[in-house]
Amino acid sequence: MEGRLGANGATADDEVTSTVLHLIRTSQARTRSELSRVGNLGRTVVSRCIRELIDVGLVIDGETTISNGGRAPRELCFNADAGALLIAKFGATAVSVGVTDLAGKMLATAGSAWQIEAGPDESLDYVVETMRSVQPKAAGRRVWGVGVGLPGPVEFATGRPTSPPIMPGWDGYDVRARLGVVFDAPVWVDNDVNVMALGELRAGAAVGERDVVVLKIGTGIGAGLISEGHIHRGAQGSAGDVGHVPVIGTALDVVCRCGRTGCLEAVAGGAAIVRDGSAAAADGSSPFLADVAAGDRSIVVFDVIDGAAHGDSACMTLLTTAARHIGDVLATIVNIYNPSLVVLGGAVTSAGDSFLATIRQQVYLRSSPLATRDLRVVRSTLGQLGAAIGTAHMVLDELFVAGCLADGAPLWDLLT
Amino acid sequence: MEGRLGANGATADDEVTSTVLHLIRTSQARTRSELSRVGNLGRTVVSRCIRELIDVGLVIDGETTISNGGRAPRELCFNADAGALLIAKFGATAVSVGVTDLAGKMLATAGSAWQIEAGPDESLDYVVETMRSVQPKAAGRRVWGVGVGLPGPVEFATGRPTSPPIMPGWDGYDVRARLGVVFDAPVWVDNDVNVMALGELRAGAAVGERDVVVLKIGTGIGAGLISEGHIHRGAQGSAGDVGHVPVIGTALDVVCRCGRTGCLEAVAGGAAIVRDGSAAAADGSSPFLADVAAGDRSIVVFDVIDGAAHGDSACMTLLTTAARHIGDVLATIVNIYNPSLVVLGGAVTSAGDSFLATIRQQVYLRSSPLATRDLRVVRSTLGQLGAAIGTAHMVLDELFVAGCLADGAPLWDLLT
Repeated sequence: MEGRLGANGATADDEVTSTVLHLIRTSQARTRSELSRVGNLGRTVVSRCIRELIDVGLVIDGETTISNGGRAPRELCFNADAGALLIAKFGATAVSVGVTDLAGKMLATAGSAWQIEAGPDESLDYVVETMRSVQPKAAGRRVWGVGVGLPGPVEFATGRPTSPPIMPGWDGYDVRARLGVVFDAPVWVDNDVNVMALGELRAGAAVGERDVVVLKIGTGIGAGLISEGHIHRGAQGSAGDVGHVPVIGTALDVVCRCGRTGCLEAVAGGAAIVRDGSAAAADGSSPFLADVAAGDRSIVVFDVIDGAAHGDSACMTLLTTAARHIGDVLATIVNIYNPSLVVLGGAVTSAGDSFLATIRQQVYLRSSPLATRDLRVVRSTLGQLGAAIGTAHMVLDELFVAGCLADGAPLWDLLT
Repeated sequence: MEGRLGANGATADDEVTSTVLHLIRTSQARTRSELSRVGNLGRTVVSRCIRELIDVGLVIDGETTISNGGRAPRELCFNADAGALLIAKFGATAVSVGVTDLAGKMLATAGSAWQIEAGPDESLDYVVETMRSVQPKAAGRRVWGVGVGLPGPVEFATGRPTSPPIMPGWDGYDVRARLGVVFDAPVWVDNDVNVMALGELRAGAAVGERDVVVLKIGTGIGAGLISEGHIHRGAQGSAGDVGHVPVIGTALDVVCRCGRTGCLEAVAGGAAIVRDGSAAAADGSSPFLADVAAGDRSIVVFDVIDGAAHGDSACMTLLTTAARHIGDVLATIVNIYNPSLVVLGGAVTSAGDSFLATIRQQVYLRSSPLATRDLRVVRSTLGQLGAAIGTAHMVLDELFVAGCLADGAPLWDLLT
């Protein structure tokens, strides 16, 4: 109840309208009488809200449903075509841009290589340009919100990156102001693993779950934590920073990019696998990778995955070792966080089932029996698009679940 | 907004009344005009709510405040004397029982040794008897709710212990039914570290914080996690089970009561300190503890703390080693969870400041710079009563923040 009314300047009426919209949008209620019953609202109130929502185009009177006597009730539908969202999701070396409808469905996407190190001005100029190139696919719909996912910690309330280690020049940058003025729309920004987790929660493997850990195993390793259906971001937005949890036992002499030794990321992330794979190519212990290295390009993580699939034992050992370290740290996370579901995503999870099986095995071995009793460990179902889809859902959640704009004004201000 | 209206059978009117009560109870609004402004509510609605709340005795018209012209507004006060709560907090070997007012203030307490191993029937019989002995201090006030803290995981929604490792016979036991029928009041049950964390959040060191880790270092070691002002309980209610996180490097051969090796609790909990202290007494490496052991009682953790305070170097080493292990695991928790505050409680934290300083040092050494940038690590301010006070606040939160009874009925059902 804290801050339920008035916190964002919404009136009690706005709140009720938001509730009605939420019930229709999430298909919890499809008719006026269902709204009245599910929402515990009077008929008059429901009628007023629906009129308002139809007026602003967010709800349409749909098909007539089957009646149980008397006049057949009409079904109410959320109108996802009432507007569009623009989203951008940065990785360290690539950016995906898209335009979606108000249900988070991608209408068009554009992806390209991009060095986030280029800094915020150049990077966001490029994003604006790319967003403008996909925007026509929204066919003139108004832009209701802009979402950005960044590969570093973000202070969600302000949308500013917070001391991001691989994003020089971005610390404290006002991403909101930069994009908001261009598209005249509210802007939300979050960490890429958090939006990936939200994507799985709203549209992927974690739909309907309440306590979830989404682990991204890419160049680096990070987790998105969901507590009772909400992203747990932490005090500085750096929750889920599991790449620098020390691993047990072996490899304690490997220095991480953070300056400490024995970090998970330094022994099991994509970059670590490439580093060790390159060494295995050089010393001849991996014939498969030696062949790749003899060509005209550097080894990438997919070469190691490919090698393992072709039976190269050095590649198989590299992946199994990485999986064991990841499983050990994941076991600690499971003990501490007690999720019902762990979703594994990121490029490295395209390694075969034995990679996932090893992770699972370590989790079950090292976590408490209670924490693993009903625990499922699954692969992301959204794959590469997960974070982009999640970025759209971040905007939708803020607009329609929190029911307020980036500056705290109620959603309805957008319409007036 | 999810489930905001209707989820618990409350009407929209009930919800508004709950909001008004919440604003008065938390001193966010003290007059009718403040309620109107802060709650974004019409004057008529505010007046109706206040009338209802005064009628049921939860709000009283207090002193006249200073007016800025016109008739002086009267200050509204929450009436904490309108009812009472009964609470019981079990440890492994002791139970505290109390009666509080509706603000969580202890009116009377009774504590005694009690083996939780006695099982639920005998233990709860004893609690009922003790609650009846303190209840007269509530001077005939109606019992609004009963709260129980247990030393094991609890499924909060049903109040049933879930495979608790040190509570034979309690698994799945219906604590609610047992106590609810005796006191004709709703009953809530949670893990002892969760209620301890809630105590710190509502009335202790963590007031006003949003992301908090409360670490209890007693016989065992456990954590209560607060995410955006709410307890993160996890899927089985076992979140915060940090006692079985493996420690790095040393002592990996120590077998834990959970059957695995190298668990934090097995090398740094109170029981581990006592075990190692007894060994130090036996082999003569601790003259201080050898003296204690020569008497007629076994060594307890306070002897080790006492020895360290008296300069016994074996005792000092035991505590420093424990602190270092605790700090290492806490660093991992800080990386994963990114709290703004860590509160340390439990018997072992009565060890001197150097114990806490060592924990802090390890956390700052092993956590990421961002996660520790504004992190504070402090001692509990509630001390031994923390979990009992927190148990009362668990009941108050459910009654007045969630605004519903244990069976999901709205709070107002209690009054009709």
